[in-house]
Amino acid sequence: MTEKKIILSHGSGGASTGELIKEVFADAFKNEILDAMEDAALLPLEVGTDATGRLVMTTDSFVVDPVEFPGGDIGRLAVCGTVNDLLMRGAKPLYITSAWILEEGADVEQLKRLVKSMAETAGEAGVNVVCGDTKVINGNGGIYANTAGVGIVYKKDGNEYISASGAKPGDSVIVSGTIGEHHAAILSDRMSIETDISSDVAPLTDMVNNLSQINVHCMRDVTRGGLATICKELCVASGVSMELVQESIPVEKKVKDFAGLLGLDPLYMGNEGKLVCTVAESDEEKALEIIRASRYGKNAAVIGKVTEDDPGKLVIKTPIGGKRILDVLRGEGLPRIC
Amino acid sequence: MTEKKIILSHGSGGASTGELIKEVFADAFKNEILDAMEDAALLPLEVGTDATGRLVMTTDSFVVDPVEFPGGDIGRLAVCGTVNDLLMRGAKPLYITSAWILEEGADVEQLKRLVKSMAETAGEAGVNVVCGDTKVINGNGGIYANTAGVGIVYKKDGNEYISASGAKPGDSVIVSGTIGEHHAAILSDRMSIETDISSDVAPLTDMVNNLSQINVHCMRDVTRGGLATICKELCVASGVSMELVQESIPVEKKVKDFAGLLGLDPLYMGNEGKLVCTVAESDEEKALEIIRASRYGKNAAVIGKVTEDDPGKLVIKTPIGGKRILDVLRGEGLPRIC
Repeated sequence: MTEKKIILSHGSGGASTGELIKEVFADAFKNEILDAMEDAALLPLEVGTDATGRLVMTTDSFVVDPVEFPGGDIGRLAVCGTVNDLLMRGAKPLYITSAWILEEGADVEQLKRLVKSMAETAGEAGVNVVCGDTKVINGNGGIYANTAGVGIVYKKDGNEYISASGAKPGDSVIVSGTIGEHHAAILSDRMSIETDISSDVAPLTDMVNNLSQINVHCMRDVTRGGLATICKELCVASGVSMELVQESIPVEKKVKDFAGLLGLDPLYMGNEGKLVCTVAESDEEKALEIIRASRYGKNAAVIGKVTEDDPGKLVIKTPIGGKRILDVLRGEGLPRIC
Repeated sequence: MTEKKIILSHGSGGASTGELIKEVFADAFKNEILDAMEDAALLPLEVGTDATGRLVMTTDSFVVDPVEFPGGDIGRLAVCGTVNDLLMRGAKPLYITSAWILEEGADVEQLKRLVKSMAETAGEAGVNVVCGDTKVINGNGGIYANTAGVGIVYKKDGNEYISASGAKPGDSVIVSGTIGEHHAAILSDRMSIETDISSDVAPLTDMVNNLSQINVHCMRDVTRGGLATICKELCVASGVSMELVQESIPVEKKVKDFAGLLGLDPLYMGNEGKLVCTVAESDEEKALEIIRASRYGKNAAVIGKVTEDDPGKLVIKTPIGGKRILDVLRGEGLPRIC
């Protein structure tokens, strides 16, 4: 491949597309399934009649701007976003797809870095990239990605599959670490404000694997819309209310300072490597211990309780003792955060 | 949802995204799995220990310009592209994802039409849309889609799973109908040339289901790059050669005329509802009969033979008796054909 920039013919499906795939994608994702170079991948997953095994599937597109940011890039983000969505159902992530929409003029060396990062993150997350696609559009060098993923989940005796609707009154609400870093990292980079804030983008594979020792009622990763939006969605889906305690919600000092400077509320700032879950109060300590022992969970904290006050209502106790009702994010938030 | 055009906040993950999903996507794709509104869909597919059942997975992004064209639109195209890729492995398509990247200014009414078309085509193809995603980028109203799909395939006694590498010397090469319509429809629309050519975009579900009665050695849908590129790829993957007979390749007269006018070769013009397959000569008549009885297969024809002349070589006999060697598409082809 002689071109240093992407041109329209890289999307033709002919010789140029073949060169692009060979040079940029095939080596980075090398595995037996992908190497077959079929239009659809045959997966070594046996499909049959186990009474409790279920397939789980998800997809996300990624349009983050910039594509390389402090702490990560669109390649790592695209793996984490999809893998974490599978994990939140209690599934073991197995296979992901890798589809790219490239604007003319996209830098081939940068694309190689992003694809390498995607491959490395897939390795860390324990999934194989099994098929892909590349399209080219007119434009100014932009790079967009889509990943879809499948995993399997097995039902434990007497338990339901984990879902957003499983929170129960009396549950403890746990967040797996500090909030707002991804949002702050993207925004500071875009505004050219010098900070040492890094995105928290990470696959939560080991954390969720370890949590399978206990009975998690409800689990969601904290992404677009931030902790408040996600908790509100859980309240609505589960038909419960939640009372959070503001002082117990972990926020890095530099993120708090950055948010304060710009008048932002960390409760609505997105992460890409954090989860919120609810467990029975009797499992609270064990859950905290498991999350804190995981690679990305050392700052985990109990941040509130599930109540049955008023179904769908999310309330937060402020440091001065007042109570504030929280809704989902209204308005723009930060465009192209993921 | 009050806006008639997409704005950045529709991608925020907050209230506006919720409204967009509710108003545009949720009703169109209505099914139990999607209605759960989880980030990852739990699929009623039992995963266990059947010795011959395998999961098949694929993905494609779609950047076709224009998004509505004679005979179809990006919604129908996105279903057919992914479903047909699954079918080409002999799989029964089950579930697809629906991810959209929208440029600011995209028309909401048009988006609704596209999503409705996607839903109808999914119904025709026999798949459920089980999860989705929406992102908004800066721009001028462009609409891009990605679908990923999973299906299952069961191995028949003594046979291999169908793949691009299964063509055998002596096989008959069959195309399921006339070639070049999709390419010609897109190009004529983009150039504002008045023709009555329609895209052939269609899901080949019934055709492939019916073909499972016989032993298909090798199968591919004829898309980007056209029949010549696909046949060349099959030759390389299977380590065989092919000799096609130009006069036997079905091309609609209006497509032939249109191609002639612009100096294009129908052999390199893409379709979106055609397949090429190879079967033992003894199965040729049965295969033709099955394909011709299918909804989109009435013009199926035997177009050549698999040979063992020179592995990877594709040759075509011209009407005047000469032979021409065909390679994969070189250069641009038609940008944004799918």
